Amino acid sequence: MIYEPETGRPADQDLRPGEKIDDLQRDGLRIIQDPDRFCFGMDAVLLSWYAQARPGSRALDLGTGTGIIPILMSSRTGCASLTGLEIQQESADMAARSVRLNGLEDRILIRQGDIREAADLFPAASFDVITCNPPYMIGSHGLVGADTSKAIARHEILCTFEDVAAAAARLLRSRGHFYLVHRPFRLAEIITVLCRHHLEPKRMRLVYPFADKEPNMVLLDCVLGAASRLTVEKPLIVYEAPGRYTREILDIYYQ
Amino acid sequence: MIYEPETGRPADQDLRPGEKIDDLQRDGLRIIQDPDRFCFGMDAVLLSWYAQARPGSRALDLGTGTGIIPILMSSRTGCASLTGLEIQQESADMAARSVRLNGLEDRILIRQGDIREAADLFPAASFDVITCNPPYMIGSHGLVGADTSKAIARHEILCTFEDVAAAAARLLRSRGHFYLVHRPFRLAEIITVLCRHHLEPKRMRLVYPFADKEPNMVLLDCVLGAASRLTVEKPLIVYEAPGRYTREILDIYYQ
Repeated sequence: MIYEPETGRPADQDLRPGEKIDDLQRDGLRIIQDPDRFCFGMDAVLLSWYAQARPGSRALDLGTGTGIIPILMSSRTGCASLTGLEIQQESADMAARSVRLNGLEDRILIRQGDIREAADLFPAASFDVITCNPPYMIGSHGLVGADTSKAIARHEILCTFEDVAAAAARLLRSRGHFYLVHRPFRLAEIITVLCRHHLEPKRMRLVYPFADKEPNMVLLDCVLGAASRLTVEKPLIVYEAPGRYTREILDIYYQ
Repeated sequence: MIYEPETGRPADQDLRPGEKIDDLQRDGLRIIQDPDRFCFGMDAVLLSWYAQARPGSRALDLGTGTGIIPILMSSRTGCASLTGLEIQQESADMAARSVRLNGLEDRILIRQGDIREAADLFPAASFDVITCNPPYMIGSHGLVGADTSKAIARHEILCTFEDVAAAAARLLRSRGHFYLVHRPFRLAEIITVLCRHHLEPKRMRLVYPFADKEPNMVLLDCVLGAASRLTVEKPLIVYEAPGRYTREILDIYYQ
């Protein structure tokens, strides 16, 4: 029996060495993470907030990692089913244990598999909403430890953005939404790839650490097969002063 | 002899009925405009500020209208030559008279002609810098008066953005810069078209009327044949309060 470090209560499942359980401060949700592998960041929280889904929707998260996106979306949306696809067996296993920890087995399915083979894993056009917080960095650039979990989550080692867009375009129903978070420095390439796959960007929100600084994240809402017309939304500012979040960020985290 | 309305001094050239001479508040520059045809706006001022050119550069402005961009750039940059291409004969004539009014005949050439035939009017790869403040609106949408000067300046009646990008890609030297201003709602389409013509967006600045509102202009700096990597710059905010410009806008206008 494993005990939770903070509370001394028995953990709902076995934890592996190095793993911990974090409280998501939302509807009592918790998540298992291993700091040596990968812990979710603000980008995942913002993406799960930006993604909208009608009640009853079928959602898929590509490269789900710890399962943070479907777990948060289970609370934020009325999705009937949330599927998380993850290539790394250990991460998929950890995500599945987090799903059980939260008693969400009836709504969230974690599946181990490769984004590049996603078209064979699921029926075409079978999802209303697809989300992805993909690796931001191009290639591995001779990265030391390119086979580590962190490197695979951050660098395009096992899939490119083109692979992600191709999978999303194949698995979304017509007019379904593809939500993603990425780095602004790749925006021109990302938009070009999205449009090539008929994933038309309809809303874009740039995330600025401070109001007078360059943005370091971009949130996109794309609609499969829609006409070309983009709403660039007002800036999303993270800090109003060093170490002090803006009201909007606090609302996103805690409302 | 025509007299300038404000000063009573003789105008340097004949003015046509309805025309007036405006002071550009920069190095004594002046411009002839006809409010019934088209008067330049903040977009032209921002574009001429955003466009950078090394001393001795050869610059081309596509769809120059009154010639506002080359006239402002003659002061802001050390361009050796600035060419303005304008399809409407009356506008081209007005722009040429403004060039003479400022004594800039040795640096600015206004040429009447069609952007769609620009590849035949100038040698390929003969410009270091190309600017364009194109019509923002798609098609004429049954617009009444689609043949008027204002409609042609605002709607894609005589050329599309694809025509503009094709001309720029043909007339720029390798690694030359294409600067444009446009509306954010067309950003996805614009980036796709630019990339198709190897005009790689390298810098982008969104212009927001107020800090907490959606942007209504976008400035882009594209480099022909460059690698894909975009810097999204900090927001450019126009008003700090209703009717009161921000310091940065005042600096752009008057410094």
